[in-house]
Amino acid sequence: MQASIAIESTPAVQYLLRIGDTCLILGQRISEWSGHAPILEEDIAMSNMALDLIGQARAVLTHAGTLEGRGHDEDQLAFLRDEKDYRNLTLVELPRGDFAFTVLRNAMVATFMKLLWERLRSSGDAELAGIAGKAVKEARYHQQHAADWVVRLGDGTDESRRRVERALADLWLYVPEIFESDAVDDAAATAGLGPRWSELQAGWQAEMDTILGEAGLSRPADAAFRSTGKRGVHSEHMGYILAEMQHLQRAFPGGVW
Amino acid sequence: MQASIAIESTPAVQYLLRIGDTCLILGQRISEWSGHAPILEEDIAMSNMALDLIGQARAVLTHAGTLEGRGHDEDQLAFLRDEKDYRNLTLVELPRGDFAFTVLRNAMVATFMKLLWERLRSSGDAELAGIAGKAVKEARYHQQHAADWVVRLGDGTDESRRRVERALADLWLYVPEIFESDAVDDAAATAGLGPRWSELQAGWQAEMDTILGEAGLSRPADAAFRSTGKRGVHSEHMGYILAEMQHLQRAFPGGVW
Repeated sequence: MQASIAIESTPAVQYLLRIGDTCLILGQRISEWSGHAPILEEDIAMSNMALDLIGQARAVLTHAGTLEGRGHDEDQLAFLRDEKDYRNLTLVELPRGDFAFTVLRNAMVATFMKLLWERLRSSGDAELAGIAGKAVKEARYHQQHAADWVVRLGDGTDESRRRVERALADLWLYVPEIFESDAVDDAAATAGLGPRWSELQAGWQAEMDTILGEAGLSRPADAAFRSTGKRGVHSEHMGYILAEMQHLQRAFPGGVW
Repeated sequence: MQASIAIESTPAVQYLLRIGDTCLILGQRISEWSGHAPILEEDIAMSNMALDLIGQARAVLTHAGTLEGRGHDEDQLAFLRDEKDYRNLTLVELPRGDFAFTVLRNAMVATFMKLLWERLRSSGDAELAGIAGKAVKEARYHQQHAADWVVRLGDGTDESRRRVERALADLWLYVPEIFESDAVDDAAATAGLGPRWSELQAGWQAEMDTILGEAGLSRPADAAFRSTGKRGVHSEHMGYILAEMQHLQRAFPGGVW
């Protein structure tokens, strides 16, 4: 078994890991729909979205490895960290759920990522700005596609509405974490790397209100609960997703099995 | 549970199902690598290949539904047939196997599909010719990518060579089926729909000999065994892959769960 790598966790590296890991883990969750989507067209759309997200993760993790300066490449960062060193939003590690859960989560994350990539286009870090320029177009499409489904389900049958309402209640618990700023955000803002995520909250809520309104859904009240994946303290689901992801790389270090 | 659809199985429809189902089932098998490939780059490459194959399947099955004339769309054809009505090569329904098995099978199927799509570009069926014009470019890339891996593994470590040799011995049993012509082929050739698959054998063997030669591997002797997926008589693996694929569509007919 390949041992874990240790991460030199400067605030800039952590800021990038939050972005890259959120893309990586959501891409992983979405790819679980491959061959399981209800219609072929949606199977293709989901796979495309997973591909975009894994491509974004790859670019950001490559850059994080460079900033870290220990020679870790994107594969080592993706596959060989301990759970506590993954810095994704808890929201994206929750199990796939049903189709309503999936499209609502996609809408929530894509809306956030779109707003974040828009700001990162003017990052003082030219490499990150370049990644953002490409990623923002993908995130816009992801948002639109997912939002269309949310509206279709919210405005659909009793069953589809019931499912999307339940998904909304479940997912909304994980929203506060997104916008909680901390020392990592402060350092990124000060260094001109990227915005404090709290700065994106008002815009995100406005866009989500539009989507939920069209779907005939109401935004739930904010939860008191605070999830903590961004700080490396994950839900019970994270261990399973890492076991799935890391199995091959750990068993055959640097190999191709 | 949604009932199966019955297929009006004219030779032209069967000919198309052999193509569409081979793409569909291989796409399904390759998509099992999503999130499990040994490196992120390969995860992306595999997912892209699966996407291409599912897109090709979708186009061909849509057209098969039109020719069949019973109003079946591509989703009904993909998800609601009984096992005996799937007409893919047995080769593609074999379990995913290890990475050596996967890339060697991909090389074998992509080489065949490339040669088939090349011929289908001049099909008398304009719709099929149009599909082939796009698909041939994708198949060329799939062949190249897979062949590169076969060479890399065959010419790699003792372990990688041992694995690809074993895969070759296993997979070669399923080659004769590809080129066995029957009444479906005869009807397709007579109608100008497409070539008898036997006509592609010499070209396929020549290209495979080149790939195997570069990898330092020898082509095994032809097997006496004849697999029969093209005629709807499948290996024991087919039931499991259909159970996976059909579960959602059968449980929620026409729905999105």
